Amino acid sequence: MRFVLFDVLGAEAQFQRMGFTDATRDVLDAVLDEAARFTETVLAPLNGVGDREGCKLDQATGKVTTPPGFKQAYTQFVEGGWSGLTSPAEFGGQGMPHAAGVPLKEMIDAANLAWGNFPLLSHGATEALLHHGEAWQQEAFLKPLVEGRWTGTMCLTEPHCGTDLGLLRTRAEPQADGSYAITGTKIFITAGEHDFTDNIVHLVLARLPDAPAGSKGISLFVVPKRRVDRDGKVGDANAVRCGSLEHKMGIHASATCVLNFDGAEGYLIGHPHKGLAAMFTMMNTARLAVGLQGLGLSDRALQNALRYSRERLQMRAPAGPMFPAKPADPIIVHPDVRRMLLTCKALVEGGRMMGYDAALQVDIAHHAPDHAERKLADDLVGFVTPIVKACLTEWGVECTYHALQCFGGHGYIAEHGMEQLARDARITTLYEGTTGIQALDLLGRKIMQMQGAGLKVFLGQVAAFCDAHGNDPALADFIAPLREKAAQWQQITMQVGKRAAANPDEIGAASYDYLMYSGYVVLAYWWARSVAAAEASAQPQAFKDDKRATARFYFARILPRTLAHAAAIESGSAGLPELDVAIA
Amino acid sequence: MRFVLFDVLGAEAQFQRMGFTDATRDVLDAVLDEAARFTETVLAPLNGVGDREGCKLDQATGKVTTPPGFKQAYTQFVEGGWSGLTSPAEFGGQGMPHAAGVPLKEMIDAANLAWGNFPLLSHGATEALLHHGEAWQQEAFLKPLVEGRWTGTMCLTEPHCGTDLGLLRTRAEPQADGSYAITGTKIFITAGEHDFTDNIVHLVLARLPDAPAGSKGISLFVVPKRRVDRDGKVGDANAVRCGSLEHKMGIHASATCVLNFDGAEGYLIGHPHKGLAAMFTMMNTARLAVGLQGLGLSDRALQNALRYSRERLQMRAPAGPMFPAKPADPIIVHPDVRRMLLTCKALVEGGRMMGYDAALQVDIAHHAPDHAERKLADDLVGFVTPIVKACLTEWGVECTYHALQCFGGHGYIAEHGMEQLARDARITTLYEGTTGIQALDLLGRKIMQMQGAGLKVFLGQVAAFCDAHGNDPALADFIAPLREKAAQWQQITMQVGKRAAANPDEIGAASYDYLMYSGYVVLAYWWARSVAAAEASAQPQAFKDDKRATARFYFARILPRTLAHAAAIESGSAGLPELDVAIA
Repeated sequence: MRFVLFDVLGAEAQFQRMGFTDATRDVLDAVLDEAARFTETVLAPLNGVGDREGCKLDQATGKVTTPPGFKQAYTQFVEGGWSGLTSPAEFGGQGMPHAAGVPLKEMIDAANLAWGNFPLLSHGATEALLHHGEAWQQEAFLKPLVEGRWTGTMCLTEPHCGTDLGLLRTRAEPQADGSYAITGTKIFITAGEHDFTDNIVHLVLARLPDAPAGSKGISLFVVPKRRVDRDGKVGDANAVRCGSLEHKMGIHASATCVLNFDGAEGYLIGHPHKGLAAMFTMMNTARLAVGLQGLGLSDRALQNALRYSRERLQMRAPAGPMFPAKPADPIIVHPDVRRMLLTCKALVEGGRMMGYDAALQVDIAHHAPDHAERKLADDLVGFVTPIVKACLTEWGVECTYHALQCFGGHGYIAEHGMEQLARDARITTLYEGTTGIQALDLLGRKIMQMQGAGLKVFLGQVAAFCDAHGNDPALADFIAPLREKAAQWQQITMQVGKRAAANPDEIGAASYDYLMYSGYVVLAYWWARSVAAAEASAQPQAFKDDKRATARFYFARILPRTLAHAAAIESGSAGLPELDVAIA
Repeated sequence: MRFVLFDVLGAEAQFQRMGFTDATRDVLDAVLDEAARFTETVLAPLNGVGDREGCKLDQATGKVTTPPGFKQAYTQFVEGGWSGLTSPAEFGGQGMPHAAGVPLKEMIDAANLAWGNFPLLSHGATEALLHHGEAWQQEAFLKPLVEGRWTGTMCLTEPHCGTDLGLLRTRAEPQADGSYAITGTKIFITAGEHDFTDNIVHLVLARLPDAPAGSKGISLFVVPKRRVDRDGKVGDANAVRCGSLEHKMGIHASATCVLNFDGAEGYLIGHPHKGLAAMFTMMNTARLAVGLQGLGLSDRALQNALRYSRERLQMRAPAGPMFPAKPADPIIVHPDVRRMLLTCKALVEGGRMMGYDAALQVDIAHHAPDHAERKLADDLVGFVTPIVKACLTEWGVECTYHALQCFGGHGYIAEHGMEQLARDARITTLYEGTTGIQALDLLGRKIMQMQGAGLKVFLGQVAAFCDAHGNDPALADFIAPLREKAAQWQQITMQVGKRAAANPDEIGAASYDYLMYSGYVVLAYWWARSVAAAEASAQPQAFKDDKRATARFYFARILPRTLAHAAAIESGSAGLPELDVAIA
């Protein structure tokens, strides 16, 4: 993490020039140490019990009890000041840059993904209120959220609509006092009810009586679990109740609620009928956050698999015993086990650069002194967000797969915790927009509609890097293939664009493979940068060798996946025959 | 299934020439209908309850209770005569060919994988006794196994050894009466204890007192749960007890037992110290059976996803509403959803040809009139077994992934059953030898040690097919790429062989990618054959079009994965840097 932040991204200098004067290397080092201590000693030990016990709903009262130890851990989290680490100081936060919060986030996700979902959603609520809330709303809701005294939710999905929010039916009736009565059923509400805090701030999408049909008639409301008046005074229970908890494949300790709003008191946030746009301003960071979940789980899985592969004795190395005094060699001597571990290592360490840089670009987009630079960073964030979200989560599924596989049958039983990581990882390619939705966002919106503004920025960075290191012997194996892939990426983009102009089906036909293709090229760039950064750093030689070896592995064994994706893209929509779509 | 059996494989004629006079099309059609009825109405409805309730162990008695309905379903299975469908008539079976039992197996796995594991292991015990048992052992054990009155197990794994059976420690002490006292702990014993039958026939690997160290000192014993004397009389309880049940990611209803043998009475099967070889004779069919598990789950997942994708309304088709009277279009109109469904369809229907043909080759290897033909089929079975096992299970994981993804967040909750399929599928790439072990079996043993005998047979079939259809306009799109891939496959095989001769690490470095490469080329052959078989059949035009369209999809979108695998193979062991292997 330190290598990525400081050696690869030069985060300290970046933070300083953006005016985050407190975000010095010393402070950040201390934050990392403390975050590691908290997540290792408090959160990680609760991961198994959370999975076994899950959250429990008392149907009579609608109250949800979290697994043993979860609430106490949250209290420690709040007392440690973690809740508002990257929130504005004026609302009780510590005003650190977004990118400084990302390692904490990764550690939480690695230690206990389900627990991490409770504070996670507060960030979305905080952002929505910061950007769209009236002054009194900010006063009343922001401080308790930032301080962690309350948590937040995002209430979008309904039983008949998830991706297609234009179909939503929840109603908001204006009341005489300027508030609204919210009525409807929301599903899949993460942290929708729990015992961590006294109050929960629900951000709810609903329709006003005069709303146009479809997605242009959706407004955003703040609906607290306990009523809050305009002076911030907390009153009695609002008319919102948890109707049931979903039984899920994983993240059992994350309370996934059906919430029934029955004339609940709420307040409009932002403009009428503009709720979807307000919600979408939170989407980028929420999606980057889910990407980090995939990364955290991958890293945990890799650490476990590495340890097991060094301990488990089975068979001899192909060329003969490496540990003749032992009854067998550790399985890490087998090339195929190394292949699995190295695949995880390349995706985890590469993914970390990708994910952390996206966070840094969020900071630059908001805080860089120069407007033009902010604009470029904003384009870049929009462009890399679907890549980071989709690839880090798809790789999370892949890495938890490989790591479990290293355990053989022992990976399939609960004892080693590997199967939980695999089950937990499986949600990440679904929520906050499936991989398919990220792919459409990338190709349909960021490339086609926005004419590839972000891609141009990114390719500019790649070209600049390749030019700077074109004669660098340390980079000799990487610059030429990177240039080649970048050129092919441009070419593919143009081809798809041309085809899509003639036939809108071509976007969806190419989108997934285009997304994954992009992810692998982006990762090639980061691996090349990693080698360059290691060389330029004060890291020990073994560290530099390790980075170069992993980069070589990445270029030789993973980057060629682009060949398959390119072929699939090229085949176009003609290769996707209609299946019978008749419906009753 | 009928298309594969009769149109593609010409199974009826094959069965007839091998002397299975009862295995006529009429009889087989009736078997398929009845198997469908039984699995759909009896087994499938129990899949969910099996997952929720699991098996329960009474620690006081060591008895295991299966989920509600499971035992009754087994009684119906036995009463229906399914247990001995493909077993020899002389032991109470119906003497049908192995390939005629495969559709039943696929249906059982699709309907209720965990339930299917109880009768599954009887087949291994039956085979071991048929090939290696003394006459009295066959008399005493075979008939109850074939009739389903008893079930069987295979007791190989111990806590410290799974893949590396040479390390096993279970002891067998010769007794005065010619029996053996078996002592040791076996783990991961599928169907090791249950309430389906009065007796269970454990086949146990153990060491005799004078056994050489390693894998050449392992003998095979039959150890019944209740003692059985040489006259077949059943006596009192043997000294074997279920110590615990594993908590697993999936197949909750499959009893995965720790079995403690404490001087249990057993009998030697076959020769002393030759137990591993005896066990390996069962391995091919057991591995093919696990491959079918991957296939069955994939097919179930695809069927569910197809139905959901036709029903779920969300967004509009890219080119505009296809069902304007509905609030939204069914998601199957979206090209990316079609991509996921078609990927499953291509892998399932292609995998079915691959899996069923392997079973047919098992029959040919045993029953073809001509010795030379039997030898070729035997080579082919040995060669395709690791491909079928590994690829059908890896594709099972992939297909359950895509199918779940089609459901979005709804796939992650228990309600639709999709997440259970994904969890259940995850065991299949682990047990009966992980994918990595299959890969070593293919490249290390079947290619290197056996000098690619099976590959030559297979490539001969491919060449003959390509020659026969070289001018067939219906096959115009498929023959050239198939020839090209077959040639590349040979080339890659020779390259790897050359490198491996110099450095044994090269086998393990290439094995996984070589295996998957092989699987995709094999599937290309089957898809080409599928098109040819459909054209030559009396199937309706829509059926022929569907096969051709799916074949096109396979060649355009899935076969290019070989490019990535070929590149990885080519990179060799040099691209797999040593990770620190120091152990304490």
